[in-house]
Amino acid sequence: MDGSRCAPTDREFRVSDRIASATLRARITDADTAAALIQPGETVGMSGFTGSGYPKAVPQALARRIAGERASGRPFRINLWTGASTGPELDGALAAVDGIAQRLPYSSDPVAREKINRGEIDYLDMHLSQVAPMAWEGVIGTLDTAVIEVSGIRADGSLIPSSSVGNNKTWLDRAKRVILEVNRWQNAALEGAHDIYYGTRLPPQRVPIPLTRPDDRIGTPYLACDPDKVVAVVETDAPDRNLPFAAPDDKALAIAGHIIEFLSHEVKRGRLPASLLPIQSGVGNIANAVLSGLVDAPFEPMTAFTEVIQDGMLDLLDAGKLRMASATAFSLSPAAADRLNANMASYASRMILRPQEISNHPELVRRLGCIAMNGLIEADIYGNVNSTLVMGSRIQNGIGGSGDFARNGYVSIFMTPSTAKDGRISAIVPQVSHVDHIMQDVQVIVTEQGLADLRGLSPRQRASVVIERCAHPSYRPLLADYAARAKGGSYGLHAPSLPGEALSWHQRFMETGTMLPA
Amino acid sequence: MDGSRCAPTDREFRVSDRIASATLRARITDADTAAALIQPGETVGMSGFTGSGYPKAVPQALARRIAGERASGRPFRINLWTGASTGPELDGALAAVDGIAQRLPYSSDPVAREKINRGEIDYLDMHLSQVAPMAWEGVIGTLDTAVIEVSGIRADGSLIPSSSVGNNKTWLDRAKRVILEVNRWQNAALEGAHDIYYGTRLPPQRVPIPLTRPDDRIGTPYLACDPDKVVAVVETDAPDRNLPFAAPDDKALAIAGHIIEFLSHEVKRGRLPASLLPIQSGVGNIANAVLSGLVDAPFEPMTAFTEVIQDGMLDLLDAGKLRMASATAFSLSPAAADRLNANMASYASRMILRPQEISNHPELVRRLGCIAMNGLIEADIYGNVNSTLVMGSRIQNGIGGSGDFARNGYVSIFMTPSTAKDGRISAIVPQVSHVDHIMQDVQVIVTEQGLADLRGLSPRQRASVVIERCAHPSYRPLLADYAARAKGGSYGLHAPSLPGEALSWHQRFMETGTMLPA
Repeated sequence: MDGSRCAPTDREFRVSDRIASATLRARITDADTAAALIQPGETVGMSGFTGSGYPKAVPQALARRIAGERASGRPFRINLWTGASTGPELDGALAAVDGIAQRLPYSSDPVAREKINRGEIDYLDMHLSQVAPMAWEGVIGTLDTAVIEVSGIRADGSLIPSSSVGNNKTWLDRAKRVILEVNRWQNAALEGAHDIYYGTRLPPQRVPIPLTRPDDRIGTPYLACDPDKVVAVVETDAPDRNLPFAAPDDKALAIAGHIIEFLSHEVKRGRLPASLLPIQSGVGNIANAVLSGLVDAPFEPMTAFTEVIQDGMLDLLDAGKLRMASATAFSLSPAAADRLNANMASYASRMILRPQEISNHPELVRRLGCIAMNGLIEADIYGNVNSTLVMGSRIQNGIGGSGDFARNGYVSIFMTPSTAKDGRISAIVPQVSHVDHIMQDVQVIVTEQGLADLRGLSPRQRASVVIERCAHPSYRPLLADYAARAKGGSYGLHAPSLPGEALSWHQRFMETGTMLPA
Repeated sequence: MDGSRCAPTDREFRVSDRIASATLRARITDADTAAALIQPGETVGMSGFTGSGYPKAVPQALARRIAGERASGRPFRINLWTGASTGPELDGALAAVDGIAQRLPYSSDPVAREKINRGEIDYLDMHLSQVAPMAWEGVIGTLDTAVIEVSGIRADGSLIPSSSVGNNKTWLDRAKRVILEVNRWQNAALEGAHDIYYGTRLPPQRVPIPLTRPDDRIGTPYLACDPDKVVAVVETDAPDRNLPFAAPDDKALAIAGHIIEFLSHEVKRGRLPASLLPIQSGVGNIANAVLSGLVDAPFEPMTAFTEVIQDGMLDLLDAGKLRMASATAFSLSPAAADRLNANMASYASRMILRPQEISNHPELVRRLGCIAMNGLIEADIYGNVNSTLVMGSRIQNGIGGSGDFARNGYVSIFMTPSTAKDGRISAIVPQVSHVDHIMQDVQVIVTEQGLADLRGLSPRQRASVVIERCAHPSYRPLLADYAARAKGGSYGLHAPSLPGEALSWHQRFMETGTMLPA
């Protein structure tokens, strides 16, 4: 197909709607043909962030091809790099056929998780802001092929980004070959909402990032792409993953209430402006409940400088409480995605989607003074936080952007229900089994039991407050007993601990199925 | 004394030499009178960073006063804030009389350490870049009195800083009252070497810090100080602490050799410029040995963007290998201090001393792409690093600036001898007893045994390399055995661990005096 015939067919009408470049129209092919261009052992950089904007057709075609090759005794695995999590058509499909050797920087797919935790995929869990710079430094390997979903191709060959930006700029620039998926399902009114900053460099050529408000546009709305590198263009019409959020339960509402009370207190004491500072919120049901809770809070007009725009952010925009949101991707329920798509023109003017190296950049998080709100798996009495490894070894999802925001934010809040597994796991433990956020980076811990403001406290002071305010009553006496005994048997009393017992709750859970003693 | 008499006495000649402001000359008094202005329970911000530029007379006078009050049954303690570590005349003297209730953000004094580890001082161990912003945010308390050593006072009342800058700008701005110590021992030729940046703000007023090279001067050479707040000026003539460095032993030389080989390799592969990127080096004998080793390495002209200028930096400047060094303080041996003072005019033109919020600012460390080189107490097989707590509970010194540089540097190197206490402690353990640097922030680990380049490796891959390259032969089989067994009994195999055994080496050391099994 060369696009030169005079009487357009239906297919060409459809094509010209989203692919304005004649050069790239000529590269249109099917997913199987495109997937055949990827060779065993390659490193493939795909688009996708929190289930948005990931390629849907080529990965599934690649998975079919891998399954066929394996059945013929020809093992076939790739190294898979993305923005963050994708969907079952990508991570799930490729993991199911054992097609992934190495995975970075984040994954939440249940099939892939199981393979990682069986030791069958090498998973590099990275700070999301550091992926693009490290790719440029050349220290995590070389990128062979990029597979990028876009919502359209312009006449000059530049790309209209999809529902996530992630690392797409870097993959397009660094890969030897590019495969594009043009997804008609993505709303055409998204055009113009993106801001792709092309000012990053490797040191010693780095300069300040010229952004001082979440609203600032510092780049262009389009992704640049060398058309000579594009080896295939595949048309799709498929929705993003878009998992539903659970309705907030009592615990989530209690946590949201504690956080709003804390923020109100900070405003009253003059330590936060009445419109707060730009909010950052992790992904998940509790984070979403906190955002929804802010609809009825007295803070306005708020802004968000965050990783993802989830349902609660739309609620805040609808309520006029949130003036605008800067992120790198959407992470919406199907209902919210419908709401977004029905009113995209209105929403798009109040949203900016950026590369994740910018949405999460420590320079910007610190400058803007983000209010960082993230979930956790467990915290210890001193406020060290484990966000990633259940029982210290089993990956749940990954550190994501939590480290980018927690260390550099104006205030760093971590939140969790005080127990999991029907009370058999305490989220507050004597010592975390793995550390993602050191005590210096954890300033506030919130459970449904209460909120611990740890700023300005020494480790021993922190322990008292965490046990008293955050622990579940069924574990509180056990924690207090540990803390008291640690003062007797510890090597030093700066942060008393008993190494022979500190991880015994985890060991007990592994042996008996509960952290509670018999 | 009002400075108005025509025939100057000897004392006035001495005074006018360093105190050009008539207003502030009128506030000259003795240390005991100045110390009497500090009230029990106050929060006092003092100057001082790595044993440089701390007040020497007032703290000792205060300690005498506290001892007297205590003897009379009137307990007297203060909260003590500084830049970083000071000297025996400050931390040591005040700790010895139980005069410190709360201490932040860093301490290395042996007397104070003992009190902290007996639970008698509440110690807040902070990222050094975050102290000034958190003081401005008002979340660590309110500052009553500042006690700041300077090397001179200008006619307009502005201050010529001393041998460290630290948090002096913030203490002078935030304190209700100011006591100045003017130390004649400090070299007058230091004037002009400082660069005090006055552009920091609280969000939402923060803007990019306009520094793109370590050489850039973005402020003024002088500290501003409201003369109305100055309640006392005390003259001193006393040297900084200036502890000698140990001559590098074979292990330090081996570590230096591994690091230089690694950097040479990176230059050859085109991942570092031939002049490297700005180097950052922690304080201590091994760090100093690495710097001295760089004298014979092929990298030039280097720059340093670091916390402190130690002996090895002078060697590099003398050898013409280091073009210039940016830091917040000196940390020199007595011999090097003599060398510096004898040639200050020559050195000062190649040095810039900045506030620690700038010397350590994540924005700048990331922009400049520092090569971060820091020491550690222990690392585990996955590359998590403990820099602060011996056996997980006993503070050694503090995290200092290591977190500022390790997370944001271009490459983050941690170094240590593979054993301590004559082999009874292994620096490589199954699991660290405390975490200061998470595995994502630890890219290279070096011992005298070898160097582990962990970039691009999954946790299981990291474990193999760390055990093989870094562990001492007497612990290597024990670590390999743990890693192998962990693959059998772990909850997940992403980063296999055995919670019931992971900290048993520490427990064994506490019980038997060695990590080696009987």
